[in-house]
Amino acid sequence: MRATTKRLSVLSACGLAAAIATAPVQAADNVRWKMQAAYGTNLPALGDTIPSVLKDLRDVTDNRLYIKHYEPNKLVGTLEIMDAVRSGKIASGFTWIGYDQGKVPSSILFSAVPFGMEPWEYMAWWYEGGGQQLAEDIYHDQNIHPVLCGLTGPETGGWFNKEINSIQDMEGLKIRYPGIGGKILQEVGASVTTLAGGEIFQALEKGAIDASEFSLPTVDKQLGFFKVAEYNYFPGWHQPFAAFHLTVNKEKWDAISDVDKKLINMSCQAGVTRNLAQAEATQGEAIEYLEDQGAKTRKLPDSVLKELEEVAETVLEREASQNEDFARVYESQKDFMDQYQRWQDLGYLPRDF
Amino acid sequence: MRATTKRLSVLSACGLAAAIATAPVQAADNVRWKMQAAYGTNLPALGDTIPSVLKDLRDVTDNRLYIKHYEPNKLVGTLEIMDAVRSGKIASGFTWIGYDQGKVPSSILFSAVPFGMEPWEYMAWWYEGGGQQLAEDIYHDQNIHPVLCGLTGPETGGWFNKEINSIQDMEGLKIRYPGIGGKILQEVGASVTTLAGGEIFQALEKGAIDASEFSLPTVDKQLGFFKVAEYNYFPGWHQPFAAFHLTVNKEKWDAISDVDKKLINMSCQAGVTRNLAQAEATQGEAIEYLEDQGAKTRKLPDSVLKELEEVAETVLEREASQNEDFARVYESQKDFMDQYQRWQDLGYLPRDF
Repeated sequence: MRATTKRLSVLSACGLAAAIATAPVQAADNVRWKMQAAYGTNLPALGDTIPSVLKDLRDVTDNRLYIKHYEPNKLVGTLEIMDAVRSGKIASGFTWIGYDQGKVPSSILFSAVPFGMEPWEYMAWWYEGGGQQLAEDIYHDQNIHPVLCGLTGPETGGWFNKEINSIQDMEGLKIRYPGIGGKILQEVGASVTTLAGGEIFQALEKGAIDASEFSLPTVDKQLGFFKVAEYNYFPGWHQPFAAFHLTVNKEKWDAISDVDKKLINMSCQAGVTRNLAQAEATQGEAIEYLEDQGAKTRKLPDSVLKELEEVAETVLEREASQNEDFARVYESQKDFMDQYQRWQDLGYLPRDF
Repeated sequence: MRATTKRLSVLSACGLAAAIATAPVQAADNVRWKMQAAYGTNLPALGDTIPSVLKDLRDVTDNRLYIKHYEPNKLVGTLEIMDAVRSGKIASGFTWIGYDQGKVPSSILFSAVPFGMEPWEYMAWWYEGGGQQLAEDIYHDQNIHPVLCGLTGPETGGWFNKEINSIQDMEGLKIRYPGIGGKILQEVGASVTTLAGGEIFQALEKGAIDASEFSLPTVDKQLGFFKVAEYNYFPGWHQPFAAFHLTVNKEKWDAISDVDKKLINMSCQAGVTRNLAQAEATQGEAIEYLEDQGAKTRKLPDSVLKELEEVAETVLEREASQNEDFARVYESQKDFMDQYQRWQDLGYLPRDF
């Protein structure tokens, strides 16, 4: 607003002709934010959509709206992104907000939920089922404004050096499985560790762990897990969707114009479309590639999935009983999923048709 | 471009200070297009997303990029939209381009395909699997530039006054079913008619037809078909996805700046996200409402679906043998679906899990 006023007063000195010939009046404050990314631009679907979201914003504003992208760990470490945005140390981050579950337990529900929604179902819940409102309520109290800006389907169920034929095979299994998925496996007797992504390969290679999940087939392929683990298990029951958010320091967000807020929302919504498109388009080929390299594709038996689902419900209910926000969001998701189930069953053909 | 040059020369007369204080140089030509919509803004998901796509464009350009929305039939009839855009009679339309199949047989493949892709699969094919490129190749020859700008899931399988327990029950059935879906039903012995949407209610009421499809449960509810037909059949095998395009006269499209093209693409991609979110969010409730009003929800037996699928393949292959573009697009979709099937089966839980 300040810049606009200044512009007009300068222009008035030059007479009406100049004013008519200039671009229409609009909020013209430059925006200069730094953005710490959680995933490198080398990781397909996970890290290479957000740069195009930011480029679109620069391109349509002639660089007026400039959010500068930083590769992982350049400004702060991945697990520190939320804190750095909260405090205003950095203006913004692009991350999986579930990393924030130590401070905000419900954050996990906005990021990935075992036996939870499918990506398009999450998208429907976020924009139309009250999800966005809940996330904003909870995160505005944290001095953070969250914008949904990336969305993919399930990860693989993980890389295993042991076959899983019954739930008993999980007992004593040394497995790297983060978040609630890890809690569920712990509940059925696995020995769960939480290595950082960069340590998985070596740990599998040395036999320090028997199994690990990480990401989409396209990403797992990039990281070469097929070289150190025999079986690639599906489905990714622990996160049927994975959502990613542009998180902005709330004071920074409040300070920009409505037009700039709209531009960011628009570019992020467009990013969600492109991100999901890319993620869905490329997994089939990645699975084939992994098999060509010797990976043995396996499906977890239905009986194992059913038992994991039961335990998942117990674990999620327990989390809900310990945190009011978690309970509120969990309830909202369950209600939404109940009514969606009807449509999913009726409207679409079976997956294996 | 012309406006920019003019602006700069006027500004130069006012000295450097004014130039620095103005908004950054950008293409500032006003865009004023008329857009004929195929569906009214009163139809949920079908007609009420595009107004927000156009409003976003106005809002972020201070009304510089103004595409004016016209309710159905205000400028030209729904089936004439493509011709009017082709000739430049109107600058743009928002429609289901399958209505153009008389002139461009392959248009149907970009719009809805029996036993074809699911919405997210189509999205992946369009942006990442060569679909957009094919559509542009084919439609640029028609003097039309197509932009994907809306996407929903399946329609209901239709409203029937007779139960369908085997494929034989289709014989002699007087049914309103447009496009390739209609050709398939004809092949299995139904008597297929092609009434306009507005005539369906009366035809069912008077018994002139036994059955009809129209749209999503939310839309069918709006049109009250539950009052004149007993059974609501699922799934919508004839169109697992329905895609909608902003179609722009190619000369008009070529004449706008790269920034404006990017803005339109961005707003349409954002529209795809919101449209799919809305369509998926609201069907479960609509089905419940319809049942409360007395509609009997039915699923077509698997045996019927399997037979329809076989016939669908025959009909689609026949269309492909008669038109080169159709063959090219059909081949591209089949290849894409083959590799996606692997991911769909492995990555996700079964629909009824």
